[in-house]
Amino acid sequence: MNTVPEDIALAVEKGRSFLLATHIYPDGDALGSLLALGDILKVMGKDVFLYTEEPVSHLYEFLPGSDGLGERLGDVARFDCAIALDCGDRFRLGRRADRILTVKPTLMIDHHAGHKLFGDLQWVEPGRSSTGEMVFELSRRLGVGLSRDAAFCLYAAIVSDTGSFKYSCTSPRTMRIAADLLDAGVDPAEVAGKLFDNFTLNRLRLLKRVLETLEMHADGGIAIILATRAMFADTGTRGADTENFINYPRSLATVRVAAFLKETDESLVSVSLRSKGEHCNVARIAALFGGGGHRNAAGFKCPNISLEEVRVGLLVRLRELMATGCGGDEAQGR
Amino acid sequence: MNTVPEDIALAVEKGRSFLLATHIYPDGDALGSLLALGDILKVMGKDVFLYTEEPVSHLYEFLPGSDGLGERLGDVARFDCAIALDCGDRFRLGRRADRILTVKPTLMIDHHAGHKLFGDLQWVEPGRSSTGEMVFELSRRLGVGLSRDAAFCLYAAIVSDTGSFKYSCTSPRTMRIAADLLDAGVDPAEVAGKLFDNFTLNRLRLLKRVLETLEMHADGGIAIILATRAMFADTGTRGADTENFINYPRSLATVRVAAFLKETDESLVSVSLRSKGEHCNVARIAALFGGGGHRNAAGFKCPNISLEEVRVGLLVRLRELMATGCGGDEAQGR
Repeated sequence: MNTVPEDIALAVEKGRSFLLATHIYPDGDALGSLLALGDILKVMGKDVFLYTEEPVSHLYEFLPGSDGLGERLGDVARFDCAIALDCGDRFRLGRRADRILTVKPTLMIDHHAGHKLFGDLQWVEPGRSSTGEMVFELSRRLGVGLSRDAAFCLYAAIVSDTGSFKYSCTSPRTMRIAADLLDAGVDPAEVAGKLFDNFTLNRLRLLKRVLETLEMHADGGIAIILATRAMFADTGTRGADTENFINYPRSLATVRVAAFLKETDESLVSVSLRSKGEHCNVARIAALFGGGGHRNAAGFKCPNISLEEVRVGLLVRLRELMATGCGGDEAQGR
Repeated sequence: MNTVPEDIALAVEKGRSFLLATHIYPDGDALGSLLALGDILKVMGKDVFLYTEEPVSHLYEFLPGSDGLGERLGDVARFDCAIALDCGDRFRLGRRADRILTVKPTLMIDHHAGHKLFGDLQWVEPGRSSTGEMVFELSRRLGVGLSRDAAFCLYAAIVSDTGSFKYSCTSPRTMRIAADLLDAGVDPAEVAGKLFDNFTLNRLRLLKRVLETLEMHADGGIAIILATRAMFADTGTRGADTENFINYPRSLATVRVAAFLKETDESLVSVSLRSKGEHCNVARIAALFGGGGHRNAAGFKCPNISLEEVRVGLLVRLRELMATGCGGDEAQGR
């Protein structure tokens, strides 16, 4: 917790052969940070292996270098340093977490709040918008100029985790780093286009179906949408195609809490929760169902249960949340 | 065209009583720039009248000072300086354009390309993301510190015209100005929430109906959506509620050109066009129908004609556009 970025930079300078890893189901910040740091280390003349448990989602194939990630970890004795990026919990490193952590030292670079510290050196700053922002600063400390590809990956990481500079985690520093990355030759419209204008026609058809399920409760304070297995089958889509759908109910002016329930392939109901304002903590709701997250963005999964059962049980909890201050004046005023 | 910002600053310093105006149907950049410059001039001890032809849309009522705009221009002899903001054409100043332009000097501050110069001193920089960015720079030249309200309005102006830093007009300078505005106390999530999370339930219902009309042509390169009078009536919405709807067809990965046709109240069909890439100029298409705009964002209006007639005529032109390079390799690669 007290590790300063200088210590991380020193450890990086010392190492020769690096294992880089990030959390499972990696998002834009996870992959962008991983690829950019890999590029930086290669420029420094280090050996680098970028590990991922599963193939990169088609949504992130546009990130330069994403075809160079490896799913076969192999013998970790060949590494003299591991770096875990954007990962607040050792279990989120995936099935090979124990093996990764046998590498000494394992460094952790992360911006998540409520992280569960692991590894040998931890640089954790919840005040940062993204891990990408931290990797940018590390590159400065290391005195390494960013390649255009690395700048592109870091810009994509920041845009991903700030919702294109819309979320409250966006700071003046975030903006100045973004400016430096644009100076390095990144085209902001290209990144935004790849991250946000990535709808397939089937995905838009799924969105139409999902929007038809919209239900409102508690005087418009609660909004719920659903995606059933039938909808995925009818439209030829899958779980990953619902990214950002939660933002539609969230965007309603009266809504304080939005929920998106989907039946994914493995007889599992996945729930995403979003809230607005300081008084509406959906991480607490998610925890009741065995999940986790941040105050305004959380989620959980329920195996072997029907969508309808989850919906009914969740609605009870959301109504309680609304009744205990979430719909209060201060929250409404935001 | 050759006026430098210094000349504008000098003229502002000389004036005592100012008339500020912007284009009709003002958007976030127009109103944000107008309100911020009004605030700046008041801080300088000037008399200021902010003119608007029509009441401010409910979408922009959150801008501080938006309740202080006046629709009654009155005798313009009381002004010794007028400033037209974000307005590339005198006709876009509205019905009172001639009266406004009798004020000497009339200054013009604008970032639109293909502007038709008018007024006495013109500061036009098409390379700027927004007029808000230019008003920020003017405040620096005038040596006036921004109030929190002025900073908020300028940030909203920039976010509006860059689509939250997604469009190609976003430059490193845009980002650094945004950083300075955040330093002045602006909450980025508050601005984004007010600008983008402003859906009413009726508006979401309208979106569902409009998405159902989606049609694709030219191997997925052209996407068209429609809003009929019946849809507005059924959902209790009006033309202004369709803001940003054009982004849904535009967000499809295969789409090069997107069109949104709507039947507005006055037996008028309004058409918005969006395109991607350098080779797909929708301003040229709009010009064929008597409209105008930018390369990647344009529009036109057709009175006394059916939606279906416009759709058929437009589709012919869009197919021609696709056939003449718009769907080419370079454009596809973006």
